[in-house]
Amino acid sequence: MRKLLVIGVGVGDPDFVTIQAVDALNAVDVFFLLDKGPAADDLTHARQAICERFITHDRYRTVTVTDPPRDRAAADYPDAVRRWRDERAERLERVIDAELDEDGVGGFLVWGDPSLYDGTIRVIETMLKRGALTLEYEVIAGISSIQALAARHRIAINRVAGPVHVTTGRRIKEALPDNADDIVVMLDADLACAAYRDEDIDIYWGAYLGTEDEVLVAGKLGDVVDQIAQTRAELRERKGWIMDTYLLRRIG
Amino acid sequence: MRKLLVIGVGVGDPDFVTIQAVDALNAVDVFFLLDKGPAADDLTHARQAICERFITHDRYRTVTVTDPPRDRAAADYPDAVRRWRDERAERLERVIDAELDEDGVGGFLVWGDPSLYDGTIRVIETMLKRGALTLEYEVIAGISSIQALAARHRIAINRVAGPVHVTTGRRIKEALPDNADDIVVMLDADLACAAYRDEDIDIYWGAYLGTEDEVLVAGKLGDVVDQIAQTRAELRERKGWIMDTYLLRRIG
Repeated sequence: MRKLLVIGVGVGDPDFVTIQAVDALNAVDVFFLLDKGPAADDLTHARQAICERFITHDRYRTVTVTDPPRDRAAADYPDAVRRWRDERAERLERVIDAELDEDGVGGFLVWGDPSLYDGTIRVIETMLKRGALTLEYEVIAGISSIQALAARHRIAINRVAGPVHVTTGRRIKEALPDNADDIVVMLDADLACAAYRDEDIDIYWGAYLGTEDEVLVAGKLGDVVDQIAQTRAELRERKGWIMDTYLLRRIG
Repeated sequence: MRKLLVIGVGVGDPDFVTIQAVDALNAVDVFFLLDKGPAADDLTHARQAICERFITHDRYRTVTVTDPPRDRAAADYPDAVRRWRDERAERLERVIDAELDEDGVGGFLVWGDPSLYDGTIRVIETMLKRGALTLEYEVIAGISSIQALAARHRIAINRVAGPVHVTTGRRIKEALPDNADDIVVMLDADLACAAYRDEDIDIYWGAYLGTEDEVLVAGKLGDVVDQIAQTRAELRERKGWIMDTYLLRRIG
């Protein structure tokens, strides 16, 4: 039976790769590359570097699965994502069927951890529900950007026995959660936390975590948010994309 | 200058160890073991197995730092933890000063990830604030129980662009958070989620994640919570301790 391995390779630093991921990388016959937006080229290079460093044979190939166009401006955001995901699953199914032998092992290299803000598991589940392909699959956890952020700032994400709320820039535009004093913000294109600059909040921010371009800023939100905004704008201009994450920590 | 490495070794499976952690393990002269409750023996064996497997020399030692007694019944829980942590920091300081050379490297093997529901970073920060020792330290991220849970169940922790609330058994006894449909529960001694058995919630539960004793259960909360409770009781009886985590997912 065909087998798929969804391999979290950690975020940025090839040294984040786990032993389990190294073993999985070496078991793959065909890597399926789901191409992704403006950072695609840089991420593809980073993935190639990981394969070259950790795979001890040359019997693997890489096949790119081109993403369908995505309507990011759609008013009904979850529904637009769903339609896009169905089409993506169909494309993936066709490529796997054409490229992977009946007993072959297909691999997906996921930046960070497949369980956090990544669509690979979902596209595979969607594909399996279509029922055209029978295969088994396995998920290999990887170091997420949240963990890299915490490790580089040398902080715990939670306070003693305290809750942590992980959310998105889009959501904190409405309000900050009132049931957690530690808030991790993902997928924030506009640094939505700036709206809370007058509150007693510390921010721990990081961009390109784990890579050579890593930038870290920490401090009282009101004191550092302008600096972060400027740094973000400059970095995005220079590299063409930015990938950043931050923790908001209510203090006092 | 002395250096400390806080090394996340992942949860359970030695294959969760990252390349970065392997390098860090090999740099350590003295491992400081913070002994911890009923699971201490099993965790110590697991740590020894990791050291034996990944360290390529025999020039390291292990020193146990005995924990001060802990008043778990204290009404003022955070304050009791704080006093306990201060005393723990003082003990650690004395041991490091006595056992680690002026240019030595000390290591802490942390189960899972040092940034999530682990006290090692805090005890080091508390020790540094006392000002008696000067040293640098570094944190190495590891695969957390949340990620192992998600990988083994082959699920994403979040829904599309949705929030995730990470909390404790103690807190969900009061109420489930109303601002996230995906809720990760840690440190739950009594399976507090049983109170919500009549709600439309799926549970993804795992115990001893990553180890040979791993047990997974998933299903509608009302259908499987009794089975989980019984399994938990039997496992805890047999091993003397249990370490489990679960995701609650509101459906419909």
